[in-house]
Amino acid sequence: MERPRHQGMAKNTYMRWRLPLVCLLWEVAMIILFGVFVRFSPEADAHWKEEKREMNLTSDIENDFYFRYPSFQDVHVMIFVGFGFLMTFLKRYGFGAVGFNFLLAAFGIQWALLMQGWFHSFKSGKILIGVENLINADFCVGSVCIAFGAILGKSSPIQLLIMTLFQVTLFAVNEYILLNLLHVKDAGGSMTIHTFGAYFGLTVTRILYRPNLEQSKDKQGSVYHSDLFAMIGTLYLWMYWPSFNSAISEHGDAQHRAAINTYCSLAACVLTTVAFSSMLQKKGKLDMVHIQNATLAGGVAVGTSAEMMLTPYGSLIVGFICGIVSTVGYVYFTPFLESRLHIQDTCGIHNLHAIPGLIGGIVGAITAAAATEDVYGKEGLIKAFDFTGAYQTRTPSVQGGFQAAGIVVSLLMALAGGALVGAILKLPVWGDAAAENCFEDDIYWEVPEDEESDVYHMHNPDKPASP
Amino acid sequence: MERPRHQGMAKNTYMRWRLPLVCLLWEVAMIILFGVFVRFSPEADAHWKEEKREMNLTSDIENDFYFRYPSFQDVHVMIFVGFGFLMTFLKRYGFGAVGFNFLLAAFGIQWALLMQGWFHSFKSGKILIGVENLINADFCVGSVCIAFGAILGKSSPIQLLIMTLFQVTLFAVNEYILLNLLHVKDAGGSMTIHTFGAYFGLTVTRILYRPNLEQSKDKQGSVYHSDLFAMIGTLYLWMYWPSFNSAISEHGDAQHRAAINTYCSLAACVLTTVAFSSMLQKKGKLDMVHIQNATLAGGVAVGTSAEMMLTPYGSLIVGFICGIVSTVGYVYFTPFLESRLHIQDTCGIHNLHAIPGLIGGIVGAITAAAATEDVYGKEGLIKAFDFTGAYQTRTPSVQGGFQAAGIVVSLLMALAGGALVGAILKLPVWGDAAAENCFEDDIYWEVPEDEESDVYHMHNPDKPASP
Amino acid sequence: MERPRHQGMAKNTYMRWRLPLVCLLWEVAMIILFGVFVRFSPEADAHWKEEKREMNLTSDIENDFYFRYPSFQDVHVMIFVGFGFLMTFLKRYGFGAVGFNFLLAAFGIQWALLMQGWFHSFKSGKILIGVENLINADFCVGSVCIAFGAILGKSSPIQLLIMTLFQVTLFAVNEYILLNLLHVKDAGGSMTIHTFGAYFGLTVTRILYRPNLEQSKDKQGSVYHSDLFAMIGTLYLWMYWPSFNSAISEHGDAQHRAAINTYCSLAACVLTTVAFSSMLQKKGKLDMVHIQNATLAGGVAVGTSAEMMLTPYGSLIVGFICGIVSTVGYVYFTPFLESRLHIQDTCGIHNLHAIPGLIGGIVGAITAAAATEDVYGKEGLIKAFDFTGAYQTRTPSVQGGFQAAGIVVSLLMALAGGALVGAILKLPVWGDAAAENCFEDDIYWEVPEDEESDVYHMHNPDKPASP
Repeated sequence: MERPRHQGMAKNTYMRWRLPLVCLLWEVAMIILFGVFVRFSPEADAHWKEEKREMNLTSDIENDFYFRYPSFQDVHVMIFVGFGFLMTFLKRYGFGAVGFNFLLAAFGIQWALLMQGWFHSFKSGKILIGVENLINADFCVGSVCIAFGAILGKSSPIQLLIMTLFQVTLFAVNEYILLNLLHVKDAGGSMTIHTFGAYFGLTVTRILYRPNLEQSKDKQGSVYHSDLFAMIGTLYLWMYWPSFNSAISEHGDAQHRAAINTYCSLAACVLTTVAFSSMLQKKGKLDMVHIQNATLAGGVAVGTSAEMMLTPYGSLIVGFICGIVSTVGYVYFTPFLESRLHIQDTCGIHNLHAIPGLIGGIVGAITAAAATEDVYGKEGLIKAFDFTGAYQTRTPSVQGGFQAAGIVVSLLMALAGGALVGAILKLPVWGDAAAENCFEDDIYWEVPEDEESDVYHMHNPDKPASP
Repeated sequence: MERPRHQGMAKNTYMRWRLPLVCLLWEVAMIILFGVFVRFSPEADAHWKEEKREMNLTSDIENDFYFRYPSFQDVHVMIFVGFGFLMTFLKRYGFGAVGFNFLLAAFGIQWALLMQGWFHSFKSGKILIGVENLINADFCVGSVCIAFGAILGKSSPIQLLIMTLFQVTLFAVNEYILLNLLHVKDAGGSMTIHTFGAYFGLTVTRILYRPNLEQSKDKQGSVYHSDLFAMIGTLYLWMYWPSFNSAISEHGDAQHRAAINTYCSLAACVLTTVAFSSMLQKKGKLDMVHIQNATLAGGVAVGTSAEMMLTPYGSLIVGFICGIVSTVGYVYFTPFLESRLHIQDTCGIHNLHAIPGLIGGIVGAITAAAATEDVYGKEGLIKAFDFTGAYQTRTPSVQGGFQAAGIVVSLLMALAGGALVGAILKLPVWGDAAAENCFEDDIYWEVPEDEESDVYHMHNPDKPASP
Repeated sequence: MERPRHQGMAKNTYMRWRLPLVCLLWEVAMIILFGVFVRFSPEADAHWKEEKREMNLTSDIENDFYFRYPSFQDVHVMIFVGFGFLMTFLKRYGFGAVGFNFLLAAFGIQWALLMQGWFHSFKSGKILIGVENLINADFCVGSVCIAFGAILGKSSPIQLLIMTLFQVTLFAVNEYILLNLLHVKDAGGSMTIHTFGAYFGLTVTRILYRPNLEQSKDKQGSVYHSDLFAMIGTLYLWMYWPSFNSAISEHGDAQHRAAINTYCSLAACVLTTVAFSSMLQKKGKLDMVHIQNATLAGGVAVGTSAEMMLTPYGSLIVGFICGIVSTVGYVYFTPFLESRLHIQDTCGIHNLHAIPGLIGGIVGAITAAAATEDVYGKEGLIKAFDFTGAYQTRTPSVQGGFQAAGIVVSLLMALAGGALVGAILKLPVWGDAAAENCFEDDIYWEVPEDEESDVYHMHNPDKPASP
């Protein structure tokens, strides 16, 4: 029976007062802060008819809503169904995977609207939000979902909410440094979302190292149908990644190009993942862990450069490399990280987000540095890298340098932030389970006692024969 | 074995001639009525090039298709996957949940195109349909899916088709009264869809009260994977609800605003649902029933007001309250309704749709009554509430009164209509199952005999050890 | 135990070197060919700002991306989740269904971008790709997914990759003959995708006939939850089919109309499928095989005519007929094909794609032949059938004749191509499994040994009683 052995429980996982308190206090705080700060952007405000006249817009279709809403919905699916179901692969942690992801993301998007709003959409004392803010909030939370992948099955919902609070805050600071101070391009978030989120999560899980985790080894695997549930998550991430990388790009060709580059990179990634999954296994069989995860690395790795003139050909190369690197990571690096560096990475985010995120940052820096007026056109180059205002004298090669700096900043912020937050989460008051009860929904969820009835029916001698 | 005990069957559930007859007759009727009445709207007609010239439209993108089609597809997913899978939580009623929902919705949208068409799109003897009609037909069927939730597992497919026929008809009448006679705003359908659908369904299930339903108590629960299937439904409803509430709003800022308000309300709702789910349970564990359902109440409750200037802050408050009310409902009201009022509400639609629907109507009335030119702008106020033509002298406070009247009308229509339809469905000729066979797919579906083979393999002593 | 009986294995299914080699070689070939040939279309290129000025476009929203991207994403979901999950109905072939579909589609879209690009988007030595090319590549791969349905469970991943290579090539040739030489309309691909894909797949499976396939009969069925997974595929195909049939239609009314016609046809199809599923079964129970498949036939059968003035009424009739034909096909034709013609059609693509595809071609030919200026308007008729340039004197009735010719060409190409590819796949070097190991993931996948642990828990006498 997969119920916690209560006699052995050293830890108090009783959530009844702590979890409600955290949820209610934080939601009340959100309401107060939204009340003080958050209003509609002009395009979502009832005064828009006047605004439209002032801006000489002739049609309602010029509202940013119509440029971005379909992509927003795809991103929304990636965060809640994509990440949520990707993590249901564990045999007895499906509720926690999809349910806790739901909880932390629902809280995180509210806090992200505020944090990112203060940095980017703050006018006359108010944060003005529109569809682009919703997308950015989802993006920010994406980095938390990534970090959740490292500590999946080992943390309490309170720990997740605390991690979300801090990580969203640090994400917004890091994003501000990259986008505003370094004037870096990162539309699909290879640096801000993946590199930051993954190294943050890896640092947290390192600090929360559990030496006796092998006590729950039997629950760290999948069952047949849990692997199929996880494939729902995989496929929605894979299919909608072109929307993810293009969602906040400039209107027009940049969005168009970002979608195409991502489509190509992901397609190539599937083939090398399959090749190496089979090659690295003695029996030559495919491993669902690789198919579920490494196939997505190609999307991560064109996050920075997708809106640039990476070209379909360049995208295929990036996807090709990342399928290999990520699959090799699952086979060799993950066990190494656990045994030598004491980094217990439940979902292998090191292979899916950390390394491909770094690659994505580097590809972005190179693609930016290699940009020419010939390839982009004079106006196109200015538009693509926003070489206007204070940045009108910046050259592509300098931009490449700043892009590279963005990788380093993201990495350092992740390590420092993860160390801080890991230390906070290590306090023995947040209700995480003992090692022997990890990866088990029964600790925090009412779990249906389904097996008994099935067994009853299976062995019922009165069962009529099949027709 | 979960096969019906035939010896005990008092009822004839044999569908072979009745169900095909109903399906074929009704579909033939649809064909004849569509042939007589239904044509393409100008924007979907091959003459559109001329129409475009007459209306001085310079671009094909001005076609309503591009304003609404992405939202339509999201709504379509909510009706078929959202409602369908939400109801798969029962351990042995997954086929019925998703399959009967499919059947009734496929029939219902056709009949809704006609009924709503006669009321709203009837010109020169023809119903002219475009993408907005498809959305409205899906909306109308949404109210039937809600009512289905109350009688899930207890009714035959014929009963569901009959209920659909009547409910769609009454929905269209009620919608006409609200939108055209009372000139009420209800873009997301708190009143027309949720209040009407839920009280209709609750009245039907009251009339169909089954005193011996505890005979199938063992099948009213979930199993581990059925709860995960249900989460697919939950998440698609939750993620796409911003599209639902904005799908038929005015082009431009109203659609934009409706999406933002709904996004905010739903996010807040998740946190209070989690808080109260844990708080109301002695062991402090989370209950999947709450996570699957109460998290959605925030979407229901901003259905009327989402396109108004509810503000993100107001939306959070509505979501906050509804998460609490709905979760408390599942814990205390549902058992009370069953034991005292003899209302057997399989999915708890009282908590997810009825109460939040009423709250949504009230919030809408208050938000309308509180509208000012300051907040909306002079033109914005007229546009938001369509204070034109016969209604150009209506003030916000009067509008608020009419909104409130809309709630009452919806409620009365639901109760009267539900009573009528319940009485019809009680006739002993529709093939519903005996109490002991409720919540069991095997009555109406060929169910694979899957357990045997599994058991065989499980106990096979020749099985090699895991590698 | 469902593990292959190794002692009985006559065939070498060891993939370790062959599969990686094929994947890597082909992906390298893709990279080289993309490098030589593929560039961005003007609308996805950084020079677009200049292009826009030249074309007098006033808004970024005129970029084709905004007309087609939402439909593209829906089509993308249909190919990867729709087809992938539809085929998970087999009890022990879920990994293969969704995983191999993923693999072949990811390879196929790359090769299709090239093949279709050479025929349709080749300018000054380069293939210029935009969102419409992505949709067409997905469409092309759709025909391979269909063919995969016929040989599901019986072929190795290498065979699937080889079939994809050839089928995509032949698809592009056939499509070129139809669209460019015969100047035929086929926006939703009744002929090019469904007729071609299905008869291709049926011919391949005929040539690969396995006389001893009854040895794996016990694995050809479904289990309860595999049928629910398959319903995910069904519903996404069903819901998004309006996007499929409208995705590459002309901007404006044609896209709008195609979506409406498809919506109507599919709705009618559900009712006749349910009617005949119940009617053709002695006990009158519904069969999930029919609900999962025949409900989709209505989408296939309006593939050619959806963008024409088929009218909602005409669409209902087409859907009505196809629900019947397809369900009857599952009950009577599929067993007949297997026993008499030795065509082993795992998913019954003959009933879902072949026959409805033919019907769709015929409906398209009739609808085209019946087109009049009265119905389409003078300009509308020219636009709908592209009666311009070399075709400006073509009349609707002549168009109808060419449409009919398109059916015949597709059929012949499918039979000839399928015979050729079948012969290649019959070579004993591709690693397909022996008959007794068909429909079993364990041959090519690492499968979790999930049953043991469950059984352990089920029978654990120490299990505490349910609370």
